Amino acid sequence: MVAPNDEEGAEGPRCHHRSTAMLDVPFLPFCAFLGTLGLLCVAMVGAWCQHWRGGFSLDGSSRTFNWHPVLMVTGLVVLYGAAALVYRIPNTWSGPKLPWKVLHGSLALGAFILTVLGLAAVFYFHNSQGTPNMYSLHSWMGLGTVLLFSCQWAAGFGAFLLPWAPTWLRALYKPIHVFFGSTILLLSVASCVSGINEKLFFSLKNGTTAYKLLPAEAVFANTLGLLILIFGVLVVAALARPSWKRPDSDSPDSCQ
Amino acid sequence: MVAPNDEEGAEGPRCHHRSTAMLDVPFLPFCAFLGTLGLLCVAMVGAWCQHWRGGFSLDGSSRTFNWHPVLMVTGLVVLYGAAALVYRIPNTWSGPKLPWKVLHGSLALGAFILTVLGLAAVFYFHNSQGTPNMYSLHSWMGLGTVLLFSCQWAAGFGAFLLPWAPTWLRALYKPIHVFFGSTILLLSVASCVSGINEKLFFSLKNGTTAYKLLPAEAVFANTLGLLILIFGVLVVAALARPSWKRPDSDSPDSCQ
Repeated sequence: MVAPNDEEGAEGPRCHHRSTAMLDVPFLPFCAFLGTLGLLCVAMVGAWCQHWRGGFSLDGSSRTFNWHPVLMVTGLVVLYGAAALVYRIPNTWSGPKLPWKVLHGSLALGAFILTVLGLAAVFYFHNSQGTPNMYSLHSWMGLGTVLLFSCQWAAGFGAFLLPWAPTWLRALYKPIHVFFGSTILLLSVASCVSGINEKLFFSLKNGTTAYKLLPAEAVFANTLGLLILIFGVLVVAALARPSWKRPDSDSPDSCQ
Repeated sequence: MVAPNDEEGAEGPRCHHRSTAMLDVPFLPFCAFLGTLGLLCVAMVGAWCQHWRGGFSLDGSSRTFNWHPVLMVTGLVVLYGAAALVYRIPNTWSGPKLPWKVLHGSLALGAFILTVLGLAAVFYFHNSQGTPNMYSLHSWMGLGTVLLFSCQWAAGFGAFLLPWAPTWLRALYKPIHVFFGSTILLLSVASCVSGINEKLFFSLKNGTTAYKLLPAEAVFANTLGLLILIFGVLVVAALARPSWKRPDSDSPDSCQ
């Protein structure tokens, strides 16, 4: 059951702000929790590849492939999530906006660079092994997500960082940018989850280590997948939370 | 780049409503498009299982498994999406709310029943074949999604349909219910996508039909996965769109 509207009782129409105030969580401790969860995801994907998948190299072997999950989780999920949350830090709500815009854009650019390196790792591995690229649903969805991200970054740069971008264009594009911001993160998370699932089926197929027997590696990587999912959902929840938004933005108050 | 706040230019603070008004799409044609897309997803998952995976039966074979994707896409994605959108129909904004609440709860209950049947299909298939249950990340995420959905339905029923639920409880729970409404749909979509990906790796591994050679079945099912993803994102976008929300709900206007 989704999105019902409660009865208007004797108290009359209720304000969304009033009801959410009863559930208020301070942003910064929540953010510290999210940061810890994000770092845990990065540490776990690194530990998975190091401990069970043979570590890292640049020789075109499966140890080159191992950069792919590490860079994707670090860039397209965790660093991207950090970039997304910049404007929810209360310090950004007063004073000049430009430094925060530059921080937001730089973190997103860092996320994008790691993402491109993560793509390069898997393409180089496939090409070295003679495996075709871009056949699985995971790859279609993942590349689609990265393409959307590149459009998002370029359009965000053009509309919000170039000083000559007209005000009407910023106003028009902003809700689109905000919507795709959350959407791209959720697509990234879905891509990571399908990728981890796929990798475990590829890697765990023999004897006592078969995926269906749920060896330690499978429990570890399944748990990683769930933590990535929880991280993505919590970042999107934090972005959507009305009381954590900049007071003068997205608010009908500013119409008045 | 996510969720920036545009500069306040010479025009002063801009209203979110003003900028989104420039992108206005009428709800009902959008809804008709979403309905068509949802039906296309159901038709495609049925056609995939019928044409390439041997059709349907109740004998515990892989033809019993085939009910799983069909019921999950139909219940946990398309019918769930329809239930979620009930309160965005402008007709629901005036007059008594109870019939719409009953419609919302009934559609969600229908979605839940199809989902449980879809789970039964895969458990029955696994048990008949001696395959372990609940080892893959897809299964962990999928079962977690269904458990969340059952809590969501029960809590929604208790808070919004039982006439003695106190008003403060409804006000407190409503934003949580709305948030999990969208979250569960996105988790469903991520589960479907990882499931389709996994099924294609299971099924397409020999000779000219290997997944990596991208036979017609793979293109068809990958496309289905992307359409399910687009359906889920569009439903969540429609739910989040301020101008499609019931005017007196979730709006700071009602504070005044």
